[in-house]
Amino acid sequence: MTDPVLVEVTRGDVVESVHHGALAVVDADGAEVLVLGDVDRPVFPRSAVKVIQALPLIESGAADRYGLTDDELSLACASHSGEPRHAETAARMLARAGREPACLECGAHWPMGQEAARALARTGAEPTVLHNNCSGKHAGFICAACAMDVDPAGYIEPGHALQREVKAAMEALTGFAHRDELRGTDGCSIPTYAVPLRALARAFARIGTGTGLTRERAAAFARLRAAVAAHPFMVAGTGRFDTILMEALGARAFVKVGAEGVYCATFPELGLGIALKCDDGAARAAEVAMAALVERFLPLSAQEAEAVAALSRPQMRNWNGRLVGTMRPAAALASG
Amino acid sequence: MTDPVLVEVTRGDVVESVHHGALAVVDADGAEVLVLGDVDRPVFPRSAVKVIQALPLIESGAADRYGLTDDELSLACASHSGEPRHAETAARMLARAGREPACLECGAHWPMGQEAARALARTGAEPTVLHNNCSGKHAGFICAACAMDVDPAGYIEPGHALQREVKAAMEALTGFAHRDELRGTDGCSIPTYAVPLRALARAFARIGTGTGLTRERAAAFARLRAAVAAHPFMVAGTGRFDTILMEALGARAFVKVGAEGVYCATFPELGLGIALKCDDGAARAAEVAMAALVERFLPLSAQEAEAVAALSRPQMRNWNGRLVGTMRPAAALASG
Repeated sequence: MTDPVLVEVTRGDVVESVHHGALAVVDADGAEVLVLGDVDRPVFPRSAVKVIQALPLIESGAADRYGLTDDELSLACASHSGEPRHAETAARMLARAGREPACLECGAHWPMGQEAARALARTGAEPTVLHNNCSGKHAGFICAACAMDVDPAGYIEPGHALQREVKAAMEALTGFAHRDELRGTDGCSIPTYAVPLRALARAFARIGTGTGLTRERAAAFARLRAAVAAHPFMVAGTGRFDTILMEALGARAFVKVGAEGVYCATFPELGLGIALKCDDGAARAAEVAMAALVERFLPLSAQEAEAVAALSRPQMRNWNGRLVGTMRPAAALASG
Repeated sequence: MTDPVLVEVTRGDVVESVHHGALAVVDADGAEVLVLGDVDRPVFPRSAVKVIQALPLIESGAADRYGLTDDELSLACASHSGEPRHAETAARMLARAGREPACLECGAHWPMGQEAARALARTGAEPTVLHNNCSGKHAGFICAACAMDVDPAGYIEPGHALQREVKAAMEALTGFAHRDELRGTDGCSIPTYAVPLRALARAFARIGTGTGLTRERAAAFARLRAAVAAHPFMVAGTGRFDTILMEALGARAFVKVGAEGVYCATFPELGLGIALKCDDGAARAAEVAMAALVERFLPLSAQEAEAVAALSRPQMRNWNGRLVGTMRPAAALASG
């Protein structure tokens, strides 16, 4: 019943902590390439599906109508660190639709990036909704609602036309009915529905290949993926896993973190989709697991391999810079 | 083989994440009161044993010779948040022994407390060694070394006379040989040795009761426990679990968090010692588990029960203040 150990944390020569989890790697038809643990139990994908939540931004015509640029589209798919460029870009997206930051309903929080938070504090300012890690997604929601000619107010509620579009996109991509009893509320106040990892992985294989999608929808995802690949800073931030990985691999891997230990990804050239969750919700382990899957499946150049190895086996140093331990994929995950 | 689930994290009506772990509740003779999971595997106790690491500070005569006050002794047992009072108190301890902050070898880091970190950033300052969450412990090490008439320089190294004293205290309390192959380096650069939870729990039963200890050593622990009970702010900080719990319970519970999901504690009136570790290293789950054990074993007044319930079943609210989920002890832990 218990999912296998995916990631080990060492200190000295001792395994100090372990992270259990489950993952699915499938193709666009759902054929299994690798399955570990229970991938049929519904889990909240959280922010890992922001690229799907951004679909109405394209399909409503908003992206074209308001002339959204690729860095803005990347931010619409982002869980960003709240650095100045992130906040400024979210504000610019809103301005294109003639809206103000006050219309964002995600709530304000200090920048997720610790250095960004301290930099903001140094200026004496307080955080705004623009610093919320989801502000780009929410700005995209506003743009989409405006293009749909619906009042954006209340766009975070399950019954709002915008959220109904998001839910329809999620159900179409995953093939999994989004039932009310599997609904939770995300950190940014929009609904999140639990979906099996297997269905999420297949959705991402479709996002990476277009298989099973209309030509328009396949093109919409190709556009969003290209935007993120061209602007990996926007989708996360300085020193963040998603930014580092996509700076190294470009469009070869589209990866997106979600809260509570979730990752979704696609390797378009292999036609594969991936979804994983660390059972304990640990981001550090989800990152190591994601990097291990990149190493396991994608042929890498020496330069790419070096960049990914730093993510799959991160060294942990203490406040004096001493190497005290490592994180590493467990046997089940690392072995070819 | 896998330890049981100790803590569940819910979102909506769904269990979103789970935390496995092990724990031992024993008396000073080692008799089992409650054991869950594997408590015989050595685990790094990390900062959960700071009260034992502070023993040389008392037994060297330093505490008396330098006139250390109870708030300073509490800080010597602390993983503090780096708030101004913490940093000032560490500096004062050093001054009593005629030493400067520069002699601390723990390394500098931004205050562990996010609000304290931002407050420091607002002043334009950078963090110093005094802000390190272990600065009180290290200031205590310096005082102890001075009272031992040994040069404090290099006091973080395993071979230094001070660390040999710390190791001897740990071995005497736990009855477990500290072998080099089970040695790691802690965040603050001192050695940490892996010890079974069962042995740690018995050590804390002894700390709480004095059973099996010399009269002098029993008195030393009683003094340290009383100092922490009188100054729970010093041992952690604003909004922190250990501070809140000991503000509510006073000397009825001595609890101390360690990194990577560890807690050690004693309930002196019951003669019990406790050691637990969440296998994934999650502090949030270790806290819930610790609070659940307080509820399970200690008779509580209505006011105490209310304070502890907020810790054993914390509500998680999002950036708009909406209740999105809870953490709670799993069945194995909660049931009487």
